[in-house]
Amino acid sequence: MAERRRTGYSIQRKILDEGAVDEMAEKSDSKPSLCEKVKKSMSCSGPRLKNCLLGSVPVISWLPRYSIRDNALGDLISGISVGIMQLPQGMAYALLASVPPVFGLYSSFYPVLIYFIFGTSKHISVGTYAVMSVMIGGVTDRLAPDSNFIIWDNVTNSSIVDAVSRDAERVRVAAAVTFMSGLFQILLGLVQFGFVVTYLSEPLVRGYTTGAAIHVIVSQLKYTFGISPVKYSGPLSLIYTVLEICYLIPQTNIGTLVVSIVAIIGLILAKELNAYLSKKLPVPIPVELLAVIVATVVSWQFNLEGEYGVDVVGIIPSGLQPPVLPAASLFGQVIGDAFALSVVGYGIAISLGRIFALKYGYKVDSNQELIALGLSNSIGGIFQCFAISCSMSRTMVQESTGGKTQVAGALSAIVILFITLWIGTLFEALPKAVLAAIIYVNLHGMMKQFMDISALWRSNKVDMLVWIATFILTLLLNPDMGLAAAIGFSMLTVIFRTQLPTYSLLGQVPDTDVYRPLEDYNQVRQVPGILIFRSSATLYFANAEMYQDALGEKSGIDITKILSAKKKLEAKRKRHEEKNAKKAKKAAKKSAEGEPERAEQKDIAIIEMNAEPDPSLPRAIVLDLSPVNFLDTVGIKTLRSIQRDYGEIGIEVVLAGCQTGVVDNLQTGGFFSDKVTKSCLFSSIHDAVLYCQSGFYLTYGLYFNANTLTD
Amino acid sequence: MAERRRTGYSIQRKILDEGAVDEMAEKSDSKPSLCEKVKKSMSCSGPRLKNCLLGSVPVISWLPRYSIRDNALGDLISGISVGIMQLPQGMAYALLASVPPVFGLYSSFYPVLIYFIFGTSKHISVGTYAVMSVMIGGVTDRLAPDSNFIIWDNVTNSSIVDAVSRDAERVRVAAAVTFMSGLFQILLGLVQFGFVVTYLSEPLVRGYTTGAAIHVIVSQLKYTFGISPVKYSGPLSLIYTVLEICYLIPQTNIGTLVVSIVAIIGLILAKELNAYLSKKLPVPIPVELLAVIVATVVSWQFNLEGEYGVDVVGIIPSGLQPPVLPAASLFGQVIGDAFALSVVGYGIAISLGRIFALKYGYKVDSNQELIALGLSNSIGGIFQCFAISCSMSRTMVQESTGGKTQVAGALSAIVILFITLWIGTLFEALPKAVLAAIIYVNLHGMMKQFMDISALWRSNKVDMLVWIATFILTLLLNPDMGLAAAIGFSMLTVIFRTQLPTYSLLGQVPDTDVYRPLEDYNQVRQVPGILIFRSSATLYFANAEMYQDALGEKSGIDITKILSAKKKLEAKRKRHEEKNAKKAKKAAKKSAEGEPERAEQKDIAIIEMNAEPDPSLPRAIVLDLSPVNFLDTVGIKTLRSIQRDYGEIGIEVVLAGCQTGVVDNLQTGGFFSDKVTKSCLFSSIHDAVLYCQSGFYLTYGLYFNANTLTD
Repeated sequence: MAERRRTGYSIQRKILDEGAVDEMAEKSDSKPSLCEKVKKSMSCSGPRLKNCLLGSVPVISWLPRYSIRDNALGDLISGISVGIMQLPQGMAYALLASVPPVFGLYSSFYPVLIYFIFGTSKHISVGTYAVMSVMIGGVTDRLAPDSNFIIWDNVTNSSIVDAVSRDAERVRVAAAVTFMSGLFQILLGLVQFGFVVTYLSEPLVRGYTTGAAIHVIVSQLKYTFGISPVKYSGPLSLIYTVLEICYLIPQTNIGTLVVSIVAIIGLILAKELNAYLSKKLPVPIPVELLAVIVATVVSWQFNLEGEYGVDVVGIIPSGLQPPVLPAASLFGQVIGDAFALSVVGYGIAISLGRIFALKYGYKVDSNQELIALGLSNSIGGIFQCFAISCSMSRTMVQESTGGKTQVAGALSAIVILFITLWIGTLFEALPKAVLAAIIYVNLHGMMKQFMDISALWRSNKVDMLVWIATFILTLLLNPDMGLAAAIGFSMLTVIFRTQLPTYSLLGQVPDTDVYRPLEDYNQVRQVPGILIFRSSATLYFANAEMYQDALGEKSGIDITKILSAKKKLEAKRKRHEEKNAKKAKKAAKKSAEGEPERAEQKDIAIIEMNAEPDPSLPRAIVLDLSPVNFLDTVGIKTLRSIQRDYGEIGIEVVLAGCQTGVVDNLQTGGFFSDKVTKSCLFSSIHDAVLYCQSGFYLTYGLYFNANTLTD
Repeated sequence: MAERRRTGYSIQRKILDEGAVDEMAEKSDSKPSLCEKVKKSMSCSGPRLKNCLLGSVPVISWLPRYSIRDNALGDLISGISVGIMQLPQGMAYALLASVPPVFGLYSSFYPVLIYFIFGTSKHISVGTYAVMSVMIGGVTDRLAPDSNFIIWDNVTNSSIVDAVSRDAERVRVAAAVTFMSGLFQILLGLVQFGFVVTYLSEPLVRGYTTGAAIHVIVSQLKYTFGISPVKYSGPLSLIYTVLEICYLIPQTNIGTLVVSIVAIIGLILAKELNAYLSKKLPVPIPVELLAVIVATVVSWQFNLEGEYGVDVVGIIPSGLQPPVLPAASLFGQVIGDAFALSVVGYGIAISLGRIFALKYGYKVDSNQELIALGLSNSIGGIFQCFAISCSMSRTMVQESTGGKTQVAGALSAIVILFITLWIGTLFEALPKAVLAAIIYVNLHGMMKQFMDISALWRSNKVDMLVWIATFILTLLLNPDMGLAAAIGFSMLTVIFRTQLPTYSLLGQVPDTDVYRPLEDYNQVRQVPGILIFRSSATLYFANAEMYQDALGEKSGIDITKILSAKKKLEAKRKRHEEKNAKKAKKAAKKSAEGEPERAEQKDIAIIEMNAEPDPSLPRAIVLDLSPVNFLDTVGIKTLRSIQRDYGEIGIEVVLAGCQTGVVDNLQTGGFFSDKVTKSCLFSSIHDAVLYCQSGFYLTYGLYFNANTLTD
C-alpha cells in the first residue's frame, strides 16, 4: 500500500476562476430542447412496440424459454409447499380482514394467477399478507360495524347481530377497497411513479411493519380469549381496544383459551424442530397445515363448539363465486384507505422482490411490478378477493424448497383451487383460535425487528428516530393514517437535517491545498486575513437566515453595527463638510483679513482616518459552496446581500467550489451583474485563497506605501 | 485584475487520503459533552438576568435614552398621520372580520400600546391587517353563521336574523381565536421557535398574500353591490361565494353601487394626486379619512340609508369596554385557525420589520417579536380585539412621514383612543360600501405581486411553482388550510429537488487538477481507466436507488448481468473441476496405460482466461461526494453495496471530497471494516485519481508481465 503513494501530488498552473475554466475547457451551451426530448420519448417503431408488449406481459417472453429440465421439479415441490401454506394463512388473514375465511382462499388464488402473467419477480409469493389484511379489517369494521346489523331475535327475545348480512356487506367493502387500490397501483405504474417507493426507507418500513404487527396481534386477541369486544375505529382505537379486552378478560372462554395455548406451543415447537431439521429435510414440514388438520379433527371429534363454546370457522361454501362489479357507491368512502393499501402493498412486494433479484442476479421492473400488483388487486376485487401483497414467510419457503420461476406461484394457486373446490368444507369445524395462533407465530420475525432500535442507536440516530416515530404513529393512528404521517415525518427529518447544519471556519493544512474545519483539527491554520466559511448543508429558504447569522457569529463581525456606524460617520462627515463649506466661505472672507485655519483641517483628517478599513477585520471572505446542491431565489439573495454588505466595509467576498448546476442557478437567478462576474467564482478553495492573497499584496502594498508617505 | 492572477497555483505534496490528513492535521476528538452544554446554557448570573429583563421589556432600555431633539417632531407627525389612517382601515377591516366596526378601533388601540412596550422594531405600524382580518372572518362566519340567529319578527311576520346577538357571538369568537393565537405566539417565542418563519420563503409569502387578497376582495363584493349572499365555509368556499354573487347580481342595490363606484374612483384619483405631490407635501393627504368624512356627510345629508337602502355602519358605541375573559369553550374549535393566525401574523410582521431594520441598521429580535405580538394579541383578545399584525401601507406612511421610534405607534394609539371616546359616533351614517372601497384601493399593492410570476419564470422555475401553488392552494383551501398546504408543498419541492439530481461523469480539464462534467465541456477529457461519478444532490433514502441506477447507466456497466455471468461461470468451473478430478482419476489409471491428456488442459485454460478482468471495464471508480450534506443508513448501505459489487468484478471504488460530518456518518454507520479503511477516502478528486493511477501501474505492470511471460 505504502508503495502506491510514492507518486506525489504536483500541480503548477494559473489560478482558475469560473470564467477561466469555462474558457479553457470550452463550455458547451447546446442542450436538447424540451421539444426534442418529447419527440424522442414519443417516437414509435416496430421493435419499440414489441419491447413494450413483452415488457407489459412478461410471461410471453419467459415462458417459451422455460427450461423444464432445470426448473420443473423445483417449481413443482415449491408450488405444492406454498399452496399448502396458503390454505391456513389465507383463512387466518381473512379473520384479520373481518371477512369469512373462504374469501382468504379466493385471495390466494385469483391474484396469484394474474401475477404469474404480469409479474417480473421470480421468487416472491404473492397472496394474503398480515399487514394488508389488518388494514382491510380497519375499513370493513368502520363501514360495516356490528351495530349496523342488529336485529331482534324472536327466539331468544334479545337483540343479536345479523352475521350473514353483515359479512356480505363486509365482503362488498373489502372488494371495493381492493379494487380501488388496484386501480391506484395501475395508475401509478402507468405514469411511471414506481419511484414513490423510495420514500419508504428501510427504517420506516421496519418500524411500520412492527407497528402493524402489534395491530394484528391485538385484533386477534378476541379469538384467543373467546371474547367479543366492541370494535373501535379511528385514531387511538388500538388503545381503546386493548383497554376493552383487559376489561373483558374475566369473561374468557376457557375452552378457547386452552385450544389457543396448545396451538401456540405446538406451533412453536414444530417450527423449532423444522429449523433444527432444515438441513436434513428436502422440504420443510407443513407445520401450519398439520396444525389445521389436527385441530379440525379434534374439534370435530370432541364437538368443541357445542360442548365448550369454542368459536369455529363455520360454513365454507365450496366452489368459486361469479364475478361481481365492485360497489361504486363505496369508492368515495374508501379512497384514502385504498391509496394507503396500494402504497404499502407495493412497497412490501418490491422490497422483497429486489432482495431476491439481487441474490439471483436478475432485475425486477418497478413500474411493471406496480401494474402487475394493480391488475392482481383490481381483477381480484371483482372476484371478491381482499387486497394482497406478498408474504415474507411464504416467499422464504418458496425459495428454499427450490422454486425458480413464477410457475411455482401458479402451481400454488392450482393447489388452492383444488382445496376450494373439493376439500374446503372439511375445515368447517376448525377453531378460529388456531388460526389466531398461526398468525402469532408467523409474526415472530416482525417482533425481532425491535432489535433494530439498538443497532440504529449506534449507527444513525436520525434513522432510529424515524423507526420509533413510525412505530408510534402506526400504533396510534392505525396503519393507514400512520403510514402517511410516518412518510411526512421522515421527509421532515431531511428538512431538519438541512436546517441544523454545521457551520465552520476552515483553515489550511500546512503546506497543502487541503482545507479543514479549524475546530476539528489541531494542526490546521487560519490563512491570515482570509475567512473561509462553510455550511455543511445546501443554502435555501429554510436556512438562509441562519447562514447569514452563523457567518456573522463565526467571523465575529457584527455587520449591522459596523454598517450603521459607517452610515453615522458618513452623515457626520457630510454635516462637517457643509459646516466647513460655510466656514470656508467665512474663512475666505477672514483670510482676506489674514487669520489662520489649521484646526478645521485636523478635524477632517480624523474623520478620513476613521473611514479607513479596520485592521482587525479580514480582508476577504471565501464562501465554500461545495456542499450546496441547488440555490433558490432566497439563497441567491442571501449570497448577494452578504457580498454587498461585506463589500461596503471593504471585505471582498468570493465563492468557491460551486457545482455546474449551482453556477447555472446563480446565472438565471441574476446573481451576476456588471460588477459581479464569474471571476468571483473559483473551482477550489485554494484557488480562491491564492486569488485573495494576490489581491492583498497589491492593496496592502499601496496601503502601506500611502501610510509611509503620510507619516 | 489580470495582474492579480500572476501568482500561480503550485502544489507539491504526497497524495493524501483521509487517514493521512487526520494524522497530518492532528484531528481532535474532544467535543463538549451534552451535560456541559446544558450547564453552560442554564447558568444564571447578575448581568445575564439584567440582559434578560432588558431583552424582554425593550422599552426600558430605549425610552430613557430617547432623544427628544432628534425624534420628537418626526414621531409626532408620523403618529398623527398613522392614527388618522387607522380609523378608516380599522373600521373597514372589522367588516372583513365580520364584527361591528368599533371593534376595529379597539384593535387599533390596545395591541398597538402593548407592542410599544415589548416590540423591537422601530418602524412597523402594528394593527389591523387585511389578510388576518379575512382569516378571522372565516372563523366567525363558520362558528356564528346567520342561520344560527334566525328569529320570527312579529312586525313583518317573517323570519329575520337577530343581528345583535349574532354580532355579540361573533365578537366572542373573534376574541377567543385572537387570544389563543396570542398564546401560541408567546409559547413559540419562549421556546425560541422564531425560526419557524424561515419556512415562509419570499415566493410563498407573496403568493399567499396575493391569494388572500382575492379572498378579501370577494368577501367585500356584497357591500359593493348591496346584496346578501349565503356564507360558505370550508374548502372551495371562495368558488361557491363567487357563483352565489354572480347569481345575485341582478338584485344589486343601485344606490350602493353608485356610492361604491364614486368612492373607488375618488380614492384612486386622490391616491394618484398624492403620489404626484409626494415630493412637495411634507405629510401625505389623509385620503381615506377625507373619503370617510365626505361619505358620512353626504350619507347623512341625503339620508342614503332611508331613501336608497344603502347599508351603513350603524350604531358605534362611544367609550371603551371592560375586559372580558375569552370563552374557553370555543378554544377547541378554533385551535387550528389560531395557530395559522399566529404564524401568518408573525411572518408578515417580522418580514416587514427586517426590511426596515436593514435599512436603518438595527436589529429586530425574532423571538422577542413573537412574544411582543403574542402579548398584543392575547391581551387584545381580553379587550375584545381581533388578531393584528402589521400593515404595509401604514408602515410606509409611518416611515415616510418621519417616524423614528415606537413612540409614533403609541401616539397613533392615542389618536384612536381620542376618536373612540368622543367622535366615533359621528361616523354612524358612513356607508359600508365606502369602507369596502377603501379595502380595494389598499389591496392595489398586493395585486401588483402578480408580476412576480414572470420575474420568477426567468430567475427560478421552482420558486415560480411555489408562488403559483401557494396562490392556488390559498384560493381553494382558504387562507388557514391553504397556508399549511403551501408550506407542505414548498418543503416537498426541497425533497423533489434532491430527488431529481443531475448525475454526471467528470473528466479532467487538461493539465490541471480541476474536474468538470464531461457533457458540459468540450475540452474535458476522461481519465483513462477511471470513472469519476457525481450526483448533484445529497445521497439519502429518497434517491439512493437512483444513484445506483445512474452509476450503472452512466458507466455502461450492467453490474447485475456481469455478476450473474460471473456466478454462472464459477458454477461451470466448479462442475468442470469436479469432472476433471474424475477424469484425472481415470487418466491416472490410463496414464499408467500411457495415453495423452492435452485436451483437458486447454479447457481449463479457456475458463481461466474468462475469469480475467474485461479490458473494456474501468479499473477504478471515484465517487465524488462533495455535494453530500449527510448520509443516512440507506445512503451508507448503497455506498457499501457499490463498493462490494464493483469490487467483485475487479473495479476499485474510492470516495472523494467527503465533509467532516459525512466521514463521521460513515464511521458511525459502520461503513469501515478491516478491509475498507479511511484510506479509500480522499480529500479531492485529483488525489483519488492519482491514487488509482499509481495502483494501475503496479497492477497493469504485473498483468502485462504475466502476459508476456505466458506468450
